[in-house]
Amino acid sequence: MLRITLLGTGATMPTPERALAAMALNCQGRTILFDCGEGTQLQMRRHHVSAARVDFIALTHYHGDHIFGLPGLLQTIACLGRTEPLWFAGPEGLERAMAPIFALAGPMPFEIRGVTLCRKGADLAEFLPGWPRGSVLSAIETAHRVPSQGYVFHLRRAGRFLPEQAERLGVQKKDWGKLQRGERVGRVRPQQVMGPERPGLTVAFSGDTKPCRAFERAAKGADLLVHEATYANEADRAEANRWGHSTFSDAAEAAVRAGAKRLWLTHLSQAIEDIPAALDAARAVFPAAECPPDGHSVRLSFPETNPNGGNQ
Amino acid sequence: MLRITLLGTGATMPTPERALAAMALNCQGRTILFDCGEGTQLQMRRHHVSAARVDFIALTHYHGDHIFGLPGLLQTIACLGRTEPLWFAGPEGLERAMAPIFALAGPMPFEIRGVTLCRKGADLAEFLPGWPRGSVLSAIETAHRVPSQGYVFHLRRAGRFLPEQAERLGVQKKDWGKLQRGERVGRVRPQQVMGPERPGLTVAFSGDTKPCRAFERAAKGADLLVHEATYANEADRAEANRWGHSTFSDAAEAAVRAGAKRLWLTHLSQAIEDIPAALDAARAVFPAAECPPDGHSVRLSFPETNPNGGNQ
Repeated sequence: MLRITLLGTGATMPTPERALAAMALNCQGRTILFDCGEGTQLQMRRHHVSAARVDFIALTHYHGDHIFGLPGLLQTIACLGRTEPLWFAGPEGLERAMAPIFALAGPMPFEIRGVTLCRKGADLAEFLPGWPRGSVLSAIETAHRVPSQGYVFHLRRAGRFLPEQAERLGVQKKDWGKLQRGERVGRVRPQQVMGPERPGLTVAFSGDTKPCRAFERAAKGADLLVHEATYANEADRAEANRWGHSTFSDAAEAAVRAGAKRLWLTHLSQAIEDIPAALDAARAVFPAAECPPDGHSVRLSFPETNPNGGNQ
Repeated sequence: MLRITLLGTGATMPTPERALAAMALNCQGRTILFDCGEGTQLQMRRHHVSAARVDFIALTHYHGDHIFGLPGLLQTIACLGRTEPLWFAGPEGLERAMAPIFALAGPMPFEIRGVTLCRKGADLAEFLPGWPRGSVLSAIETAHRVPSQGYVFHLRRAGRFLPEQAERLGVQKKDWGKLQRGERVGRVRPQQVMGPERPGLTVAFSGDTKPCRAFERAAKGADLLVHEATYANEADRAEANRWGHSTFSDAAEAAVRAGAKRLWLTHLSQAIEDIPAALDAARAVFPAAECPPDGHSVRLSFPETNPNGGNQ
């Protein structure tokens, strides 16, 4: 249902082991790219994320290690023949920050559109063809040392279809599919034949930030929380926070407060000497913490539901 | 004496096998970088070319696959603590092309200086501390579909020191080193105690171009000619030339006309299906043609000379 791929897990400078910040979220064949450090287009190719399917680029802030892959990616998307608009979101200053990017990339054969997202989020299906209804992307102001925002993607899940209800309302079997897709059939509205909305899927991407309660609240119950962890150790916490960054433990505590199901630590500094030790410390706080390599990918599906409509 | 490292051998879009255009020439610990496609800083790291030693960036033209690595490389050079000026050369339009690059990279802790090179060349030692005298870099207008130039680097080699001549002119043995380094000792000038200049080392880098006689003349007798070969086959020649590019055979013929000692083919299109076959065809024209992988490196030294001062 959702496929999330970490394209770059490093910070500041790329290394052969860790490329710069980027993550792809694919939903039914269409993709949101979160951040785009130098080399992202190559990481996409390496890890089977199609540049042709990117509809939306969500930037957390405008530091070079998060955006210098854009001119090359834009030219590649153009080469691949895109003609539909490509959407961008970012914190305050998007237009100013993108001006030299677009100047470098040159004229594109598709329109570039910016959108300002808020905490409430926008349903991507309203402007992005191919996205399922209820693909809601929200932006939450975070606490880096420049304007920054994290993102929460939520795929809503409709209630179960109630055939006995449809029959009672006199809907013919051939029209049930319309109701399930959210269309009216005569005077019957979809809500009349569907059970209560079921829990969907939630993925949260912090971008660069020190611990940020507003972001954690927005990430409530996330199936996957991807949180930055630029610094490894407890001892670095003051320094990390001074630079608007988090430590491994900060990220683990954020996952606990958010009630996340799993946690990926990313944006790791090259200066971290002992990742396994730092990860052990983070797992003492949040056992499901992981520190995945570049290219790590997971598929998230709606949980199976029991016949009474509840989650198993 | 010289170490040349091909950092990227691909064209247009990077692949896991071939990064985008970049080549480093290291001379006694200092480096010229020719072109800088996206991902160059990572290729440098991977192939042991120090970003801290780059003094000069020589651009062949301003297409994205040759320059999009610059913002990231500049920030990395800044992180590494450079304070000496960094020099740039490129064809017509350098300032305009670099404006968005420098806007993205932000303020640098070192000065950026542009220099216009001509066919006659400039001795880098005159403005770059640490470069040996007689490091001459020339630019030659080439024939791409935008303003473009190729480069020829020539390391001159002084004549042999003639001790009997120094003795005859009354120079004390302790001062011989000064004369050998090109300094005067009293009224004795270096030329008075040195034999005729010996053949030096020449490396030529074409950048993107269709076959270009002026460049071939400037590359005369090159120890290493690095020539673009975007297209593989004879059948592609008209198409290649229409786009301002060369085929494998074009490059081989250029090497023959230039009287080069060896030829590296680079800037290979992803569309080339059978590199070994294309290379065989090129070798039928110029047997010392090679098609090196990313990271390929060679050291070039002055040839041993016989006691009479001639090359062996």
